[in-house]
Amino acid sequence: MANFAIMGFGTVGSGVAEVLRMNGESIAQKLGEPLNLKYILDVRDLSATPYAKQAVKDFAVLENDPELDVVVESIGGAKVALEFTRRALLAGKHVVTSNKELVATHGRELLAIAKEKNVNYLFEASVGGGIPVLRPLFQCLAGNQIQEIVGILNGTTNYILTRMVKGGVTFAEALKEAQSKGYAEANPAADVEGLDAGRKICILSDLAWGREVRPEAISIQGISHLDLRDVDIASRAGYRVKLLGRALRLEDGRQAAYVAPHLVPADCPIAPVDDVFNAIMIRGNAVGDVMFYGRGAGDLPTASAVMGDVLDALTHRNRRRDLGWSESAPLIDQERELPLYWYLRGDFAQPEGSEKLAEGAYIVGPLSAQAAKELAEQVKAAALMPVLR
Amino acid sequence: MANFAIMGFGTVGSGVAEVLRMNGESIAQKLGEPLNLKYILDVRDLSATPYAKQAVKDFAVLENDPELDVVVESIGGAKVALEFTRRALLAGKHVVTSNKELVATHGRELLAIAKEKNVNYLFEASVGGGIPVLRPLFQCLAGNQIQEIVGILNGTTNYILTRMVKGGVTFAEALKEAQSKGYAEANPAADVEGLDAGRKICILSDLAWGREVRPEAISIQGISHLDLRDVDIASRAGYRVKLLGRALRLEDGRQAAYVAPHLVPADCPIAPVDDVFNAIMIRGNAVGDVMFYGRGAGDLPTASAVMGDVLDALTHRNRRRDLGWSESAPLIDQERELPLYWYLRGDFAQPEGSEKLAEGAYIVGPLSAQAAKELAEQVKAAALMPVLR
Repeated sequence: MANFAIMGFGTVGSGVAEVLRMNGESIAQKLGEPLNLKYILDVRDLSATPYAKQAVKDFAVLENDPELDVVVESIGGAKVALEFTRRALLAGKHVVTSNKELVATHGRELLAIAKEKNVNYLFEASVGGGIPVLRPLFQCLAGNQIQEIVGILNGTTNYILTRMVKGGVTFAEALKEAQSKGYAEANPAADVEGLDAGRKICILSDLAWGREVRPEAISIQGISHLDLRDVDIASRAGYRVKLLGRALRLEDGRQAAYVAPHLVPADCPIAPVDDVFNAIMIRGNAVGDVMFYGRGAGDLPTASAVMGDVLDALTHRNRRRDLGWSESAPLIDQERELPLYWYLRGDFAQPEGSEKLAEGAYIVGPLSAQAAKELAEQVKAAALMPVLR
Repeated sequence: MANFAIMGFGTVGSGVAEVLRMNGESIAQKLGEPLNLKYILDVRDLSATPYAKQAVKDFAVLENDPELDVVVESIGGAKVALEFTRRALLAGKHVVTSNKELVATHGRELLAIAKEKNVNYLFEASVGGGIPVLRPLFQCLAGNQIQEIVGILNGTTNYILTRMVKGGVTFAEALKEAQSKGYAEANPAADVEGLDAGRKICILSDLAWGREVRPEAISIQGISHLDLRDVDIASRAGYRVKLLGRALRLEDGRQAAYVAPHLVPADCPIAPVDDVFNAIMIRGNAVGDVMFYGRGAGDLPTASAVMGDVLDALTHRNRRRDLGWSESAPLIDQERELPLYWYLRGDFAQPEGSEKLAEGAYIVGPLSAQAAKELAEQVKAAALMPVLR
């Protein structure tokens, strides 16, 4: 029998318990032994739930149980979660998480501890919810040099954009809908301002190239200032507006990563991905473009990814996966050095060499962000947005 | 240093050598040691190629080299490839292949030998070319009960269908184009009659549910009889015609698998997948629908998947993956027991309860294949095709 614990019994944590309840039999068959949920660590009172027997309030119980193999961290944030993850790894437990904030900001340190203690720290669920993407990236595509990663990494903002495009509602209205459906939190800043997508593109970049990219080091722009007019113009001109995280490795080995709303051509496989779905496209120098698609959030999809990692950790109990990344990736000065195409809208004459999408709406480029902003200022443009090419 | 050999230096085999040439440095970094291509086994004369030094003609050289870790089998077919794979596994070598015919027809036996000898037999490249799909299925989604797999599994037929839809050309003309572009072989039967897709859906089914489904046990229908009229009617009514492999597990545990051209609703993520691209959708009871997309064939994409497996085998040198499946899956009598929706075209009045797509073109159902065929015969229908719902 293999024993695991869940720390934090919110959406993801209770989803993991539910997946075990639903699929315990097939999981035991695949594992070759039963999987037992031994502890649930939460500050809440679980005595009225079916999990009264597993409930504990003291982390030391988990830390000191030599029969506990794996700990699922679904506390969230980077305070208590960081302390308990550190201590669990140091106690020789494998740790599995969906906590993108913690992985993006402390992943390097935690993976180093995991390596030292010869245990696994796995986090497939931290990017793309239930979509298998991190393991395919570092394992199936290991024969490639990864050139670019671009994706819809946040379900909340994709739902809002879908409503703006298909329902013709403003950002504020779409956000209210998302909140009433439980897709957006009362304080939606981390989603709509792009920080959640930023953490995820950093994790993808860390894994793809083995050097740490910190969320605070990259340009992150959300969708809260998006004007319905630009969504309309884009739709009519054969584009969709999507919030994309994007990471690139240039030929000279330097890297770039950023998050911004983009115009995406309708024939790009990412363009039709709507509602709370995510899609991540990875370009390798042998495989070309591959894309991974599915539900990027939600209790059971995220729990599916967590459970996959729990099973992987247990089948590798005495042999850790060689995961990790070193310090500070060589980032370019993105404002100045990354040429992109740009969508510009405003009351000005068509810029020379630009492509006209509609009256007063043009695509210019390639230009650096700095040059594009200068141009936008010069012509008093009302909107400026990169275009995926 | 890790040593591997390539058996069969055709498209895939030479692609694997090329990927090593392109990415040897990053591969060595990931592996922690250099990867050395020690032998290339082929009947052809390679003395004028850059691989003269590696060329051997006698399989026994590979079999008897204790320093050879992994053998890539890219011979194809199920004769010589079967014998050499068997012998390589028995000699304690890990074997990696892209050979769907061999895996679909002898995978069970070969995996049993691999288990006995504690080595890996890996075949990610046998389904979906470079697209990571088998490893995500059996590893990342291990916490799920898989309910259904459906996909565009053959690039040649998808290219032909794309040309029929977008170019308005007949099947025969599109096939000729595909042949001139090197996408279809001189004898295209295995592709256009659906056998290649059939082998792949069997491998996916074997892995998803652990019971063998043999290609000769399932209904396989290709696209050679497809009429341009039906492609047109479908397009106008918001559908795309796609050759799909489909495998299901019913609630009672019994299974079904088949290959047939389908009408696919335009808003299904599979519908816009065109040209030689493949896409495989997997439904799990926790994750919902996830989709994997990319180039389903070609030298470098396929070699990417092969190389991923080679690296996986080498990092698991003393610990095999627990892969395998047992005998004969409990298949339903699909002709009678699987209710589907059907597209019917002909010169007859609209059947009761049907949906009209165009004059003389309707969707009826749910009906078993047998009942649909009886109805088609009764009304003298000119076309009958399942509809994906």
